[in-house]
Amino acid sequence: MSEPTRRPPSGAATLRADKTAAISEAVLDELAEQGYGRLSMEAVAKRAGVGKSALYRRWPSKQRMVIAVVSELSVALVEPPDTGSLRGDVLAGLRAVADWLTHPRFSRIMPDLIAEAQRDEELSQALARCIGEPRRARMAGALDRAVERGELPPDLDRELALDLLGGLVYWRVSARGAPLEPGYFERAADMALRALDARPRGA
Amino acid sequence: MSEPTRRPPSGAATLRADKTAAISEAVLDELAEQGYGRLSMEAVAKRAGVGKSALYRRWPSKQRMVIAVVSELSVALVEPPDTGSLRGDVLAGLRAVADWLTHPRFSRIMPDLIAEAQRDEELSQALARCIGEPRRARMAGALDRAVERGELPPDLDRELALDLLGGLVYWRVSARGAPLEPGYFERAADMALRALDARPRGA
Repeated sequence: MSEPTRRPPSGAATLRADKTAAISEAVLDELAEQGYGRLSMEAVAKRAGVGKSALYRRWPSKQRMVIAVVSELSVALVEPPDTGSLRGDVLAGLRAVADWLTHPRFSRIMPDLIAEAQRDEELSQALARCIGEPRRARMAGALDRAVERGELPPDLDRELALDLLGGLVYWRVSARGAPLEPGYFERAADMALRALDARPRGA
Repeated sequence: MSEPTRRPPSGAATLRADKTAAISEAVLDELAEQGYGRLSMEAVAKRAGVGKSALYRRWPSKQRMVIAVVSELSVALVEPPDTGSLRGDVLAGLRAVADWLTHPRFSRIMPDLIAEAQRDEELSQALARCIGEPRRARMAGALDRAVERGELPPDLDRELALDLLGGLVYWRVSARGAPLEPGYFERAADMALRALDARPRGA
């Protein structure tokens, strides 16, 4: 089913965007099916219908390739929430985590990368730097605006607040494999607002 | 370094406890080093210094063996907290999750099993039934007692409350690989008490 392997024309000066897109899709498919530990550059190249050199011209290693592809999609999945209210932003943030962790391929990819990171300190740092921190920064902006509006106390513990918003959904969906039943997000948002010591706007 | 492989005496009627203990240790070591996907019955038997038949006389499959060994240790790691106050029990519960997830071997084992469970529905259900639910039941007892003492509202959302207590520490330690800095547990407990809408005892 895979396309024939083609060698890139020698001396090509630019990276073809259509090839990059095909490689990215192949990386995500291989990660979802095989996991990081079993993913090989050969299998990605074959699946994308390109030569291995097409991969190495883009990224120097498997780790860099995986982090680049996964972070591009992961960070794009979070719109910085800015609904005008803390409750709206918290709801949007919880839904963004759920969309990410129930995404057909990502439901397998993120738990697998987290598991690999326990054995590979460099991968752990790359995940934090390229995926965790950009995602957290988007949600942190929403918390900062809520502090400015008087909806959150100025001494809010941002670290704990962000852990709560990520961990609550991760534990339900990925660790427990339990469903997000109707009304889940509203109840989770109410709990998060209490946890963050939120007050009614203008109170 | 492994002991010589010995065949169990044919017709032995009982399972030797010392062999069971050696096999359990070998399962945990192999899980931590190789992960569930790469763990083989052969490698466990060799590491434990027993024949493969010693494994199959105890458990019918790799999955049953892993679940039995991991659940025995995981559930034993949680003392049902009963300090007499909700705050004390929440602190004990958060610390129990942290002890489990930072345990030298478990820090690798649990994220790996969670990753495998995304690909294996039977494993996912076994993890929930044999590890997740017994651990949650112990903490749920502490919440029930707090409701009886009037420290928590009777309509407490137990599912969300238990997700919070597990997910908060998991996200910090395992997903982010971030440290539990001094004062972490006290601040996390304060946040959890607000989230659960706790009120001072007797108020």
